[in-house]
Amino acid sequence: MRVPSGLWKNLVPVQIYGANTGVGKTVVSTLLAKHFPGRKAGKTRWSVKYLKPVSTGPAGESDERYVKRHAGCQVRCLYRYDDPVSPHLAARNAGEMVSDETLLSRISKSLRQYARSEPFGADKRAIVLIETAGGVLSPGPQSTPQADLYRPLRLPVVLVGDYRLGGIATTISAFESLTLRGYDVDAIAIFNSGRFGNDEYLKSYFKNQGNIPVFSLPSVPDLEDCSKEEEWKKMEEYYENVHLSPELSVLAGCIVGQNRKRLQELNKMAKRTNEVIWHPFTQHKSIEQPHDILVFDSAYGDYFQTLHTRKSLKDIKHEDELPVLYPAFDGSASWWTQGLGHGNPELSLAAAYAAGRYGHVMFAGATHQPALLLADRLLKGLENPRLKKVFFTDNGSTGTEVGIKMALRAACKRYEWDGSAEEIGIIGLKGSYHGDTLGAMEASEPSIFNKKVDWYRGRGYWFDYPQVKMRRGRWVVEPPVGMEEEFGPRQYFESLDEIFDFETRGSSPRYEQYIEDVLNRLTKSEGKKFGALVMEPVLLGAGGMVFVDPLFQRSLINVIRRYSFSSHQTDSSDPHTWTGLPVLFDEVFTGLYRLGRFSSASFLSIHPDISVHAKLLTGGLLPLCTTVASQSVFDAFWGDKKADALLHGHSYTAHPIGCHVANTSLEVMKGLEVSSIWERYRRSWMGETRKEEGKFRMLKGERKEEWIWSMWNKHFVEEVSKNKRVDACVALGSVLAISLVDKKGAGVLGFHFRFSLPCF
Amino acid sequence: MRVPSGLWKNLVPVQIYGANTGVGKTVVSTLLAKHFPGRKAGKTRWSVKYLKPVSTGPAGESDERYVKRHAGCQVRCLYRYDDPVSPHLAARNAGEMVSDETLLSRISKSLRQYARSEPFGADKRAIVLIETAGGVLSPGPQSTPQADLYRPLRLPVVLVGDYRLGGIATTISAFESLTLRGYDVDAIAIFNSGRFGNDEYLKSYFKNQGNIPVFSLPSVPDLEDCSKEEEWKKMEEYYENVHLSPELSVLAGCIVGQNRKRLQELNKMAKRTNEVIWHPFTQHKSIEQPHDILVFDSAYGDYFQTLHTRKSLKDIKHEDELPVLYPAFDGSASWWTQGLGHGNPELSLAAAYAAGRYGHVMFAGATHQPALLLADRLLKGLENPRLKKVFFTDNGSTGTEVGIKMALRAACKRYEWDGSAEEIGIIGLKGSYHGDTLGAMEASEPSIFNKKVDWYRGRGYWFDYPQVKMRRGRWVVEPPVGMEEEFGPRQYFESLDEIFDFETRGSSPRYEQYIEDVLNRLTKSEGKKFGALVMEPVLLGAGGMVFVDPLFQRSLINVIRRYSFSSHQTDSSDPHTWTGLPVLFDEVFTGLYRLGRFSSASFLSIHPDISVHAKLLTGGLLPLCTTVASQSVFDAFWGDKKADALLHGHSYTAHPIGCHVANTSLEVMKGLEVSSIWERYRRSWMGETRKEEGKFRMLKGERKEEWIWSMWNKHFVEEVSKNKRVDACVALGSVLAISLVDKKGAGVLGFHFRFSLPCF
Repeated sequence: MRVPSGLWKNLVPVQIYGANTGVGKTVVSTLLAKHFPGRKAGKTRWSVKYLKPVSTGPAGESDERYVKRHAGCQVRCLYRYDDPVSPHLAARNAGEMVSDETLLSRISKSLRQYARSEPFGADKRAIVLIETAGGVLSPGPQSTPQADLYRPLRLPVVLVGDYRLGGIATTISAFESLTLRGYDVDAIAIFNSGRFGNDEYLKSYFKNQGNIPVFSLPSVPDLEDCSKEEEWKKMEEYYENVHLSPELSVLAGCIVGQNRKRLQELNKMAKRTNEVIWHPFTQHKSIEQPHDILVFDSAYGDYFQTLHTRKSLKDIKHEDELPVLYPAFDGSASWWTQGLGHGNPELSLAAAYAAGRYGHVMFAGATHQPALLLADRLLKGLENPRLKKVFFTDNGSTGTEVGIKMALRAACKRYEWDGSAEEIGIIGLKGSYHGDTLGAMEASEPSIFNKKVDWYRGRGYWFDYPQVKMRRGRWVVEPPVGMEEEFGPRQYFESLDEIFDFETRGSSPRYEQYIEDVLNRLTKSEGKKFGALVMEPVLLGAGGMVFVDPLFQRSLINVIRRYSFSSHQTDSSDPHTWTGLPVLFDEVFTGLYRLGRFSSASFLSIHPDISVHAKLLTGGLLPLCTTVASQSVFDAFWGDKKADALLHGHSYTAHPIGCHVANTSLEVMKGLEVSSIWERYRRSWMGETRKEEGKFRMLKGERKEEWIWSMWNKHFVEEVSKNKRVDACVALGSVLAISLVDKKGAGVLGFHFRFSLPCF
Repeated sequence: MRVPSGLWKNLVPVQIYGANTGVGKTVVSTLLAKHFPGRKAGKTRWSVKYLKPVSTGPAGESDERYVKRHAGCQVRCLYRYDDPVSPHLAARNAGEMVSDETLLSRISKSLRQYARSEPFGADKRAIVLIETAGGVLSPGPQSTPQADLYRPLRLPVVLVGDYRLGGIATTISAFESLTLRGYDVDAIAIFNSGRFGNDEYLKSYFKNQGNIPVFSLPSVPDLEDCSKEEEWKKMEEYYENVHLSPELSVLAGCIVGQNRKRLQELNKMAKRTNEVIWHPFTQHKSIEQPHDILVFDSAYGDYFQTLHTRKSLKDIKHEDELPVLYPAFDGSASWWTQGLGHGNPELSLAAAYAAGRYGHVMFAGATHQPALLLADRLLKGLENPRLKKVFFTDNGSTGTEVGIKMALRAACKRYEWDGSAEEIGIIGLKGSYHGDTLGAMEASEPSIFNKKVDWYRGRGYWFDYPQVKMRRGRWVVEPPVGMEEEFGPRQYFESLDEIFDFETRGSSPRYEQYIEDVLNRLTKSEGKKFGALVMEPVLLGAGGMVFVDPLFQRSLINVIRRYSFSSHQTDSSDPHTWTGLPVLFDEVFTGLYRLGRFSSASFLSIHPDISVHAKLLTGGLLPLCTTVASQSVFDAFWGDKKADALLHGHSYTAHPIGCHVANTSLEVMKGLEVSSIWERYRRSWMGETRKEEGKFRMLKGERKEEWIWSMWNKHFVEEVSKNKRVDACVALGSVLAISLVDKKGAGVLGFHFRFSLPCF
């Protein structure tokens, strides 16, 4: 949902949530509405707006009417239902559904109108009180809990505590529900709870928990057996007495102060960041100015809430009326980590659960349920009969290093090579990238990313290969410039499906011959030794979204698996034992549904001996990586000596939070796989193949995965490829990569959307 | 708190929590108490116990009496207060305080008694219903919220939902509060909420949220205006009608089923772990049997809840009466990560907040508040005027690699060396360890940990050094065997303070001469080049808790900083510019209060140019690492070309969850630094120095850090050192390391406690 988070210079919005229904939200709103115009602190003159997004119950008894009568401020209600029940039932009963999007956008519009209508100056500001209905998680009209429904606005909160018996528990729990959804609670207001002592307890509790101020307000008069008129009079008296009381002044000051503090901090962040932060992958000279830094206040779904920069404010005249933050689309899904959107409450709760149940527990010779479950899920999802053992690390780079250590040891052991004295290299593809720790770098060919790393040498050989591209609406497999002889001329295909149809394409004697010739030269003529094949299946991510002809990758593996790298060959009859060299697939970028399938190896119909998984694994929350290995690789480390083991580990190896979030994330993605949204994506890529009929039957049956498709609409992708500024493009799963024709050559734009976005 | 988690073979305990007070916990308990003995499912005969740990209100109207009357089962109340208010007030009013520890241990004892008194067999089991008071977070007698107070037992929960208006919100929030404390909610029971539709809503909500079953029970009869007798009759009729209803049978079946499932899963975990998990640092042949694997069900404070192994059950006869889990002390604080105990609710909520506010947001050229705040905190806490820039990675190994990349580049650039062609090594100490990624390994000398890593070469020179030990109650600085000539003979010291008293010890011409001779040999005779000094200050952690003579470390740095490694010297007049070689301190193990101070560099009164921090940084929750660098190191990467930059990064660089948890953790530790607990630790080490008077004054003033102390009681440490099986020991901050004399030589035991433990 694309709305700006609610932060203005001339307007202080605050959302009034209640720890439960009946705790006095409207009384607190009325007190604040009455307080501000008469506020004595500072020179600012305040006007007040009261906004009730959704109101249930008879119009005559409505909260906005009540506030208007007592405080005399401008009020507005966006949706009203007569039935005094939860909005989701009231809306249903009234037959008037309003979607979350519509409601949110109307609130956002109202706030913007308020901001525009306010005369702005150092001494004039407005406060907007937005009162919710019921408790923090009471459902809105479309049944979404309010704290989730309103989350895109992330308004600062005044939580009205529960003064009744049991109210300590409900108040703290309501606070926790808001907190785990990323809200900032500015203050808690609660009526004096007499002998129950809720206010006293909560003051002391929240002093230790985030130092949230708790304000104890005088009890509301007893209105039992009062006539309407008496009620009115008593309450009017109450408001008169309380609205300028010291407690209320401090509460109001706290709201204003938090707003000021937030604005000040946001404004200082870019400059301070440039002073103290050393950014990853960044030439700091290119972001020397504070306005070069993107300041993120928060994120939700596909959007960051970002501080306006000079660029985003270009052409805008009245910037004071603008929200301070604007929603910026997260086009790279935060470096390809997001699968389920920012601020996903299910994942937040999953993280909190594992933190609460375990924290971190050491993992050597030990086990816990989240790690074991994750290992089982991965082994099952990968559907690779070779893979048997799961090793945990913290990121794709460390996970690939571990995989390389595994593969080299297995090869050196079988071939009786002394890795500590001989140079054992890896075989890979040109332009590949596997991370920035030294071992992962060594497996990549020299490039801008590693050439100035003083210990980098580049231990291996990297093959050229033909690429798959969509050019002017047609799929083509192209050899690298000048290598037509080795790889053959351009080949055109009707569909992605055809490119992956290995039954029809068969094996490629030309590719295989080329590969064998290169290997002969390297090992026989030059005497080089190799210990592993390391590559990303199908798509080289950081290398520039390069789509490798899958038939070439298959050919490379076929040749390597039958090639004789040493006179010592395996004597195992187990078909899952590695031969030639252990094959390591780096699926950090490509795996776990990025390309529409659990495993990207499945596109090649190849079973690697080692495969590495990270990024989407933890649903865009926190780092975790798994290196999954075959039994025959594992066996190379089995022995009587500790020194024979894989002596690798990190303090937080298999941390339960990461594992549990990964389990939750994989389960949600598994649900998406069979969802109607993905079904729609798939259908958009239907009808282009000769085997349409057969494929359609598959779609209805179990073998859905046979179909090659993208989350990007086929027609849209074709149109993009025909744009004159576009050289070629690639679409597969959630990835769209566009190579531009520009004066300096070709730039690549890469996009990845989280999975639940509707297709274009 | 050392109690076993509540899990038995013959006993099913379930804790009845309420979403609020007045939601019908006691009615649900009564229904279950009445249901089980008459239960028709399966062959098991059930007996029922009802336990009310804390009851408030008049004895005549107590819950346990009510349950006994209606269900006729055995009931027990541990603490009773007449005042019908929250237990924390009732206990205070009654002047009868009961500590959390006592209450917990009495519940644990009751459960054990029940388990013992039960005849056990396949067809006989007991259920124990433990009813809490008020809502989930209502305070216990000592004011601790109940869900925190009872957390060490981690009993499975039946949450009684709130059927009233607003009850959807309170029920979900109560569920979230339990979940973020690591509880498993087996089921939610709620009375039919009529037109409010809470039960219907919650059924559908929880189907999507963790698939928690929600049971809708018939409403309790209207008891308004009833006499006591009529009340009794109506309720008796209600219980009679409902207790064997299908809904209640399924609820009971769900409780029993979850218990069975949990036992089955726990029993399978070790075997399955051995099948699918590849453990860090582990020779799998040595843990071939399932009973070699520690199975952790959960953890809290300093204890794991661990499945009994053959070893832990040795000598125990009646194991069926035993809890299935036992509390195992986490003696290494889970690989030195825990500072604040497992399952810390403040940290869990912090993790959830950052997940809810951001998820992860990409960090290159961007910023967010948790990362910036953490950078500020670190720079402030380190009190090192050289350090200016903070780089984020995921663990100590990657953080050290980044530091090495920084240092090498800075040196190669200034000295005009071509790192890609020349071998540039690092200088370090023997036995040091900096992690398992290749770059970090290369900075460690050859050892068991790296000798079978095929790409490892070991790029550097590692110095010998004298060590500090406590032998037979006395502190001694000892040269390595056979190196008395280089380092001088053993020196005895009165106190740790004296060892670190560099004013009195002065500089060491002997150490400095030795170091200079070695450097001359390496660089002048052998022509070697070096780009950094890399070492752990004071204590080499993974190297075996080796306590290096701090004067030697100072001498090494002094010599290196004035030594001429190249003819190109700096022309900077800035005193914070590195000279000789950039000095990198790996404080991953030693820093952030491990040794009692924020920075372990401060013990040496040395300002490194780069320092690395992880482990305790995130309070034992999840991986994060920071590499902090000086301006002069940063400047080496400044330039017009992107290739000049530090092109290192990980997908989850500076993930907000890690940063925010780190901020929370550092704040709590900062509080401990001035707490009475640490004050007690400090005092236990007072009185051993010649400067007692002066130091004591410092203790009262601001310069507390001058004092060298341990969280281990001085007398205790001295006694340990005098044990005849002990060769020597070391105590500093939270670390106690004991070298044993055994037949095979000397083994080292290392201990670290979380910081809030009382001293021994």
